Amino acid sequence: MNTKQLAAEKAVESIEEGMIVGLGTGSTAYFAIRRIAERVKEGLSIRAVASSQHSEDLAREWGIPLVAFDEIEAIDVTIDGADEADGEANLIKGGGGALLREKILAHHSRRMIVIVDESKRVERLGAFPLPVEIVPFAENLTLRSLKELGVEPQLRMKEGVLFRTDNGNLIADCRFGSIDDAAQLERRLNLIPGVVENGLFVRMAHTVVTGYGDGRVTMQDYM
Amino acid sequence: MNTKQLAAEKAVESIEEGMIVGLGTGSTAYFAIRRIAERVKEGLSIRAVASSQHSEDLAREWGIPLVAFDEIEAIDVTIDGADEADGEANLIKGGGGALLREKILAHHSRRMIVIVDESKRVERLGAFPLPVEIVPFAENLTLRSLKELGVEPQLRMKEGVLFRTDNGNLIADCRFGSIDDAAQLERRLNLIPGVVENGLFVRMAHTVVTGYGDGRVTMQDYM
Repeated sequence: MNTKQLAAEKAVESIEEGMIVGLGTGSTAYFAIRRIAERVKEGLSIRAVASSQHSEDLAREWGIPLVAFDEIEAIDVTIDGADEADGEANLIKGGGGALLREKILAHHSRRMIVIVDESKRVERLGAFPLPVEIVPFAENLTLRSLKELGVEPQLRMKEGVLFRTDNGNLIADCRFGSIDDAAQLERRLNLIPGVVENGLFVRMAHTVVTGYGDGRVTMQDYM
Repeated sequence: MNTKQLAAEKAVESIEEGMIVGLGTGSTAYFAIRRIAERVKEGLSIRAVASSQHSEDLAREWGIPLVAFDEIEAIDVTIDGADEADGEANLIKGGGGALLREKILAHHSRRMIVIVDESKRVERLGAFPLPVEIVPFAENLTLRSLKELGVEPQLRMKEGVLFRTDNGNLIADCRFGSIDDAAQLERRLNLIPGVVENGLFVRMAHTVVTGYGDGRVTMQDYM
């Protein structure tokens, strides 16, 4: 079993009967969704909401019951991966492009469990390029505003064309190198008109589950 | 000449040869666009960008030369209306639903001129319901976050269906009544995942032109 799967399966143990569960997106969340599907087959009764069309499709295919957002008031637990996690459980997410929906789920979750392999644990966020979701209108002006923060934003491409999020927006990947104050950067980014959301998740994760190459799994609570 | 038109035509006097001009949206901006078109017919050479499909269509119909955003680095002057303007030129905008694009234009304008009739001048912002643009995903959860700010947000309808912005998003109209600290409220709104933008324009306007019922027009500079 690889380290991502180790972490994912450990996290899924936290899901209890009757819960509303948020499904993350990406290669680590994939293993969590697969394990949740197994537990459902074994008799666990839960309902799920998904952070991307892709994860919703997986849930449907594997028989996880889905519930519409307008039928719920909150999410009991969301399990999702991350591209970086620091020692205070602050995250960079959005390498897969689903950051906006993932952040909405995390914000409304009583508990957010982040699952990572040890390669994602960092002293300080920022080596991974921060994804910033921007509206596809006057995007060159929005990119200029991002440049004023000292980065060279790159519009994400996929198969030769501009990548579009599930919400129809663009992603500007911003390589900050080292982020001193994630909360301040998040506020500054969100005040730029044209920026819809950014991949910084500051003090949103309650638990970080880390899988190590030697087979160990650690589970740390932060709130 | 009505008071909106008085203010609009006064503002258009500020446009100079060779400028990049931002066109606002709404009933007052309409008069500005019409006057700009007259000046273009009289020989003024400018290029324009528009804050909505509707204003772009007007410009095209009336012969105002348009320029693509990716051909410009900034806007020299934007002329736009507002739903409320306080004594420090802070605004509520978005009654027409174009707040996001209007805010992008204002943010990148060397000078933003706001044109209003006297009924829009207020001591304190907030009697007009603040429009908040939200993504059409789990919108009931985003509305819950807005309720935590002490308002009862109303999803805007048009002709019996949910109103969609030019960007495909929804508008939640939030009746705050009286807004004590517009800058703080703007930050709080923009930190809610699912909120794309809001109609508060804090310290973005450089000049307010006000038309009065008795035919007077005042022009106040703020920055």
